[in-house]
Amino acid sequence: MSLPPLLLSVSLGDPAGIGPEVVAKTWDSRRALSVPPFVAVGDPRSLSEVWDGPIAVLSNPAEAVDAFDHGLPLLAVPAAAASLPGQPTTAGAHCSLDSLELAVGLARSGTCAGVVTGPVAKHQLYAIGFNHPGQTEFVAERCGVSPGNVAMMLAGPTLRTVPVTTHMPLRDVADVLSAPLIEARARATLRGLQRNFGIAHPRLAIAGFNPHAGENGALGREEQEVIEPAIATLREEGWDVTGPYPADTMFHASARARYDAALCMYHDQALIPLKALHFEEGVNLTLGLPIVRAAPDHGTAFDIAGQDRADPRAMAAAIRMAASCARHRALHG
Amino acid sequence: MSLPPLLLSVSLGDPAGIGPEVVAKTWDSRRALSVPPFVAVGDPRSLSEVWDGPIAVLSNPAEAVDAFDHGLPLLAVPAAAASLPGQPTTAGAHCSLDSLELAVGLARSGTCAGVVTGPVAKHQLYAIGFNHPGQTEFVAERCGVSPGNVAMMLAGPTLRTVPVTTHMPLRDVADVLSAPLIEARARATLRGLQRNFGIAHPRLAIAGFNPHAGENGALGREEQEVIEPAIATLREEGWDVTGPYPADTMFHASARARYDAALCMYHDQALIPLKALHFEEGVNLTLGLPIVRAAPDHGTAFDIAGQDRADPRAMAAAIRMAASCARHRALHG
Repeated sequence: MSLPPLLLSVSLGDPAGIGPEVVAKTWDSRRALSVPPFVAVGDPRSLSEVWDGPIAVLSNPAEAVDAFDHGLPLLAVPAAAASLPGQPTTAGAHCSLDSLELAVGLARSGTCAGVVTGPVAKHQLYAIGFNHPGQTEFVAERCGVSPGNVAMMLAGPTLRTVPVTTHMPLRDVADVLSAPLIEARARATLRGLQRNFGIAHPRLAIAGFNPHAGENGALGREEQEVIEPAIATLREEGWDVTGPYPADTMFHASARARYDAALCMYHDQALIPLKALHFEEGVNLTLGLPIVRAAPDHGTAFDIAGQDRADPRAMAAAIRMAASCARHRALHG
Repeated sequence: MSLPPLLLSVSLGDPAGIGPEVVAKTWDSRRALSVPPFVAVGDPRSLSEVWDGPIAVLSNPAEAVDAFDHGLPLLAVPAAAASLPGQPTTAGAHCSLDSLELAVGLARSGTCAGVVTGPVAKHQLYAIGFNHPGQTEFVAERCGVSPGNVAMMLAGPTLRTVPVTTHMPLRDVADVLSAPLIEARARATLRGLQRNFGIAHPRLAIAGFNPHAGENGALGREEQEVIEPAIATLREEGWDVTGPYPADTMFHASARARYDAALCMYHDQALIPLKALHFEEGVNLTLGLPIVRAAPDHGTAFDIAGQDRADPRAMAAAIRMAASCARHRALHG
């Protein structure tokens, strides 16, 4: 490659959300937070509205690494109309989608080593015809990967979790869980630990679904009927997979030291421990893609946008993790 | 009262579990861990099997406070046959039940200011005819309180949680949740915070059931149909109750600072954050009883019994918390 391999693309997300602010603050703190070079993608006005630092508007992303020392490198995707912080608009939604498309394209083409996506407003996107549940599924489709074969990893300094099911009513989860679904998520997780984290022999701990992991069937049968058969299949394939464990005793420090990632059965089972322990620096990493894709584990936070209150640590952690994953992929193929 | 008000009774639990060991180690560390005086109740042999410290076998609990400085005060409840650590027996189950009965009786009679219960083996108890789901329900019945009106609080240094439902299959929880059930647990929790912790105006945060607290019905309707009406009723009664909150953003430090207890909809929603944050010192406190009852938030751990590996911090925390609650009750009635 002629371009520096470790340049990352970062979409600003919705111009009225906190995305522009946390990206700008991340650039401000690039030395303190050890942030590798990135090129932002979005509306320049969404940055200047909330930040008075230097913006280096580029026509060629190849210039970004050199520019990064002196200004926030930006590929401009102007919205049809400027947004005010906290006031999302249709024009802003279009801009966030165009920015996402370009940022993902930069990673898919190899121009950037990976993509980090700022927070978007899903309801605004749905209103303009966006028909994916979220950015993860959009990126998967652009990469030609079925959403069933990707996994959403939530990662903090001492814990990585992957939910088997995500945004659905909790009462429906038991009927959706199946051995093939658990196996697919487990394989995406295990391969993702190898490719993105350089862990040759990853250890995956699988949570039970019921309290006390069902207590041998007395408190529910999903462990015996679905989870244990999936674990048996994965172990036959040679993976280091254990469980099902009672979810409440999986997440203290000495338990966390025994695995590289925890596979959880539903959204809150994965997100509660991650955010209880690592709220300020949780990263959402999509596994199973041909590219590296990370995101800060927070939303647009319209209620605090434009008030200089947004914390950039999760965005900085996402950019650092994307760079680290890209390095492991470059080393290990 | 003629007896010192702050003597606590502590049942040793199953003689083959880690109960005797953690009680003995708690006495060993009584100064370092600031443990108030207590009288243990159980089989002397279960202590001497795992510990060579001094045991002060008493015939009168009134002697316990004076004896506490020099030996572990014990009211002997000999089992029909001695147990070996890690090998539960029917005789041991009978002994654990008799010890529980006596320890609870000491608290009910006012001889002790509260009771702390060591871990029992439920399956062994069921085999000898014990027909309560656990010790909590047994204590409630002995106190003449319906199990529906008590609440199980899990308490650590920076978090208190109360599950609305406990030991049932997760797929059944949605159908069991009702506004009256949530209200009953909330009232027991709020009154418990007043009586046991001296919080005049307790703040209760109520968790949603579904991911993102249902996202206005898009991800489930239990919030709108059950939880929000319960919150409205409680607020009409004058309680400081808020929610439903997305469960994954309730448990980081700055969120925890905004409430005195979190009411959770199911077992793992309450237990995952508590144990992720406070595994070594989690206390199980029963609210809604006329007496103070606490327990360490761990089980018999037969797999490590008799190996000098059990950590006494949770038992010490339970005894400290029971004493603190008893003091608040004595002060505020």
